[in-house]
Amino acid sequence: MKDPLFRISVVLVEPRQPGNVGAAARAMLNMGLTHLRLVRPCDPLSPEARAMAGRAVSLLQEARTFDTLREAVADQAYVVGTSRRRGKRREPTFHPREGAPHILAQAAGSPVALVFGPEERGLTAEELSLCQNLLLIPADERLPSLNLAQAVMVVAYELFLAAAATPPPKAPTLARSAELEALFDHMRESLLEVGFLDPQNPERVLGALRRMLGRAGLDPEEVRTLRGLFRQLSWYILRKKREGRDG
Amino acid sequence: MKDPLFRISVVLVEPRQPGNVGAAARAMLNMGLTHLRLVRPCDPLSPEARAMAGRAVSLLQEARTFDTLREAVADQAYVVGTSRRRGKRREPTFHPREGAPHILAQAAGSPVALVFGPEERGLTAEELSLCQNLLLIPADERLPSLNLAQAVMVVAYELFLAAAATPPPKAPTLARSAELEALFDHMRESLLEVGFLDPQNPERVLGALRRMLGRAGLDPEEVRTLRGLFRQLSWYILRKKREGRDG
Repeated sequence: MKDPLFRISVVLVEPRQPGNVGAAARAMLNMGLTHLRLVRPCDPLSPEARAMAGRAVSLLQEARTFDTLREAVADQAYVVGTSRRRGKRREPTFHPREGAPHILAQAAGSPVALVFGPEERGLTAEELSLCQNLLLIPADERLPSLNLAQAVMVVAYELFLAAAATPPPKAPTLARSAELEALFDHMRESLLEVGFLDPQNPERVLGALRRMLGRAGLDPEEVRTLRGLFRQLSWYILRKKREGRDG
Repeated sequence: MKDPLFRISVVLVEPRQPGNVGAAARAMLNMGLTHLRLVRPCDPLSPEARAMAGRAVSLLQEARTFDTLREAVADQAYVVGTSRRRGKRREPTFHPREGAPHILAQAAGSPVALVFGPEERGLTAEELSLCQNLLLIPADERLPSLNLAQAVMVVAYELFLAAAATPPPKAPTLARSAELEALFDHMRESLLEVGFLDPQNPERVLGALRRMLGRAGLDPEEVRTLRGLFRQLSWYILRKKREGRDG
């Protein structure tokens, strides 16, 4: 019953210490996860990384590397970020134990990415904007920040236990990140044109729209419907401009 | 409610890698455990150990060192071992999740020791004989053996959650139905105007939009943002119409 784990990738953004990458790979394989993706990483096959990975070295050898998080999650349908602390963000935030059954339900039908930020800084606002949900690992306030590989372990452990329990009901197939990003590009363009977004800072309000639609978990058909809406709006704007010019 | 954690000590038997001792200390403090005991350890204050401990270096400085496990647990009332695999042993064996409430119940009144064996071999039969209970961390059969510090993290995490019984993040206040209906009325009007909805049957596509936003679970602020969007769109349409008429 551990099939959904096979549709889950762990994405490490800019890991700086090879030992952490190796330890994360071992933690993944301990808990039945096998797909590792890396964004601008340190050397994942350095002796230190191999030593920490132990028998999970194959995950390092098969890891896929990307230049940006956007590219790393483009073919993923459900993107879950991790955070060290509750900030001012308004993404829906779950503890790993609450979030695990939901993540598995998505992974029953669609590829899921779990995104972990660099050791020093965590994920940026821009990186978080690519995530539909956020996991926050509960920790003692005296030292709330977990080592990167330890954070991977806690999340993977919760997923492993949840997968071993009763299989979750199958979730609908979600749209891929690249389709969503094309929709958001289209939204930005037409909403700037009608004057709804501030040209100085379109991302503020666009971020709010992203979060709402991210929470909704759109399927490909729904993304097409929304793109149709904004295509129609662009067309309307163009026609009105022409009429204004010709009138 | 975290008092019981203060009565729990982590005992590492013959840890060989200073980095693991440091990482274990960090994992402990992440999860509210502060008492570290070491049996015939490597140097727990080496640069590598300190680097992995980060702000938990105080646990390394205050760690008590012993020659034998027997001495290390002599003043403890309840001694729990950890194992990588279920062997022929006859100690009662629990998963950490099952065992955590029981361990906390003991720690409410008595000192408790959690014992972890060396990286390479785990605990010997003699060491296990000092333990009243055994924890077995569930793991994938392809790589069931966890890194030492990762094993400490999983057990400490379960104890921290059981001790805190952390209330989950508070669910956001949702917008009321009347606010949503006003939004949908506004959407219908402006999307008919731009030609996105079929005037013969606007509800079909509007229904799809309703379902997406319904699933998102909008809060009042988000409903205001969306109403602002459609208000701006209506205003844009009106202006373009005027320009067309006046042009």
